Amino acid sequence: VVSDGPVVVLAGGTGGAKLARGMLDVVGDDLTVVANTGDDIEIYGAYVSPDPDLITFWLADMIDSRGWGLKDDTFHVMDGLREIGVDVWFNLGDRDLAIGIERARRLDAGERLTDAHAAITSALGIGARVLPMSDRPVRTRVHAAGRWWPFQEFMIRQRAEGEVLDVDFRGRRAAAPTDEVMAAIRTARAIVIGPSNPVISIGPILALEGILDAIRASQAPVVAVSPLVRGEAVKGPTEAFMRWAGHPLSAAGIAAAYDGLLDGLVADEPAPPLPVLETNVLMDDAQSRRALAERALEFALSLN
Amino acid sequence: VVSDGPVVVLAGGTGGAKLARGMLDVVGDDLTVVANTGDDIEIYGAYVSPDPDLITFWLADMIDSRGWGLKDDTFHVMDGLREIGVDVWFNLGDRDLAIGIERARRLDAGERLTDAHAAITSALGIGARVLPMSDRPVRTRVHAAGRWWPFQEFMIRQRAEGEVLDVDFRGRRAAAPTDEVMAAIRTARAIVIGPSNPVISIGPILALEGILDAIRASQAPVVAVSPLVRGEAVKGPTEAFMRWAGHPLSAAGIAAAYDGLLDGLVADEPAPPLPVLETNVLMDDAQSRRALAERALEFALSLN
Repeated sequence: VVSDGPVVVLAGGTGGAKLARGMLDVVGDDLTVVANTGDDIEIYGAYVSPDPDLITFWLADMIDSRGWGLKDDTFHVMDGLREIGVDVWFNLGDRDLAIGIERARRLDAGERLTDAHAAITSALGIGARVLPMSDRPVRTRVHAAGRWWPFQEFMIRQRAEGEVLDVDFRGRRAAAPTDEVMAAIRTARAIVIGPSNPVISIGPILALEGILDAIRASQAPVVAVSPLVRGEAVKGPTEAFMRWAGHPLSAAGIAAAYDGLLDGLVADEPAPPLPVLETNVLMDDAQSRRALAERALEFALSLN
Repeated sequence: VVSDGPVVVLAGGTGGAKLARGMLDVVGDDLTVVANTGDDIEIYGAYVSPDPDLITFWLADMIDSRGWGLKDDTFHVMDGLREIGVDVWFNLGDRDLAIGIERARRLDAGERLTDAHAAITSALGIGARVLPMSDRPVRTRVHAAGRWWPFQEFMIRQRAEGEVLDVDFRGRRAAAPTDEVMAAIRTARAIVIGPSNPVISIGPILALEGILDAIRASQAPVVAVSPLVRGEAVKGPTEAFMRWAGHPLSAAGIAAAYDGLLDGLVADEPAPPLPVLETNVLMDDAQSRRALAERALEFALSLN
């Protein structure tokens, strides 16, 4: 049964954002992205949502070539902070900061995170939906090098160094998925898990109370796109987190990380007994992003 | 009795800041400025102290030629806010914002406003002291055009238009002057009230519980520099506020606004029976700022 509901992409960082951008070419405003908010951080008076913003900047074709932040953004506030002696460990462009400041203002005024982010995507001219996974705080923390780190600090200050001993999504029990997320999953035409780190990028989304049941109850086929290319992560510290989770760095490992949730996997190697669409999962230009999105969607729909 | 204590300048906006800059040339780090915080505003996730910052930027020779903000500052965050649909009524440069962001961070971490501002003046290389009048919030509000306005909104959104029907320094009863302000007044060599609006720039300082008694009890001579040149305010809406307070726009009116507090006045016309140093009070270059500060201080010391 193929519904005409949204194509739902679950996304964390860059891999998921690129796939979402490709999917936008394929299904237009029928795209709904559910974005990880476990990396959100309140800093500089702003509420910064790294993953929802990364996805949003990709969808608006405003992502900078450095791989994060807004195209051609300046960094004058960060310069100003350094000039008065602040240790600026978390770098944020001026226009990027403006987005986080406005989001914080809306939250302070009582808006839900969902609505605050919708106002931003709308202002940037995006018709598709980018849904924060929850309106309540979930904070990814990593136990490594003798302490617990908030995720951004682990990635930036600790340069993701040290064996990962534990991972925690603080607040997840009190943080339900939003009504918008649940409705998107319930009515989805297909659910595509982006090529993001299964443990720390997609993990926080799947850790929310009730979301696994909702995905299983949905009529939609569920496929994941592997973040691995020839057994290596394209970007980020996937290996250390997969090792902690006890999964090999392979298509089979990715499938295992999603623990029976998938109807199929898009990867560059088989992962029996799961149906796998074997294809190149690299997305280094607009054409390959669109092509991968299209093939992943067709594959998903073929599984229904 | 001439002590070797600080020269204390009470200052609001530009006039007081210019006099303070001149006084810095005369007495160096013996200068202590007590700054009005009634115009402070929390906006953009920052804690902005317009008067303490204006004074600080003047002392650091970092004031921009537009008359406020930091020299050669950019406005990219404001541009970014406008680009996502925010009505930016309060303009703030990027480096200016950085200062307000860092001040907010320090306040959130439990620091006193006095210490937060001291960290900023110190980072900017200022040896003299710029003391916020209180560590507790005082907010100047203006009743005009049918409503009460927070001061900055009255000045910017309402363009200071409309008859001033009332003025209120909200919070003043709970906002004691800081120990640093009281100590500076107690040990002052001289107290010089800058050429600022007596009602809304100096008024909030003098409205703090106990400060008038402290000034009267101090051994220091107290002089004010008139903000009027040939019966007109050099800058800002002094006339409307003086009219509300029932004082003419003249040296005698300025003297009356300070209600018996002054030992002398520096102005361009007499104000009998008060001793007046008749001189040009315009400060349009570094030389005239220094000269006026020097003459005001000599005059004050001559009255002791």
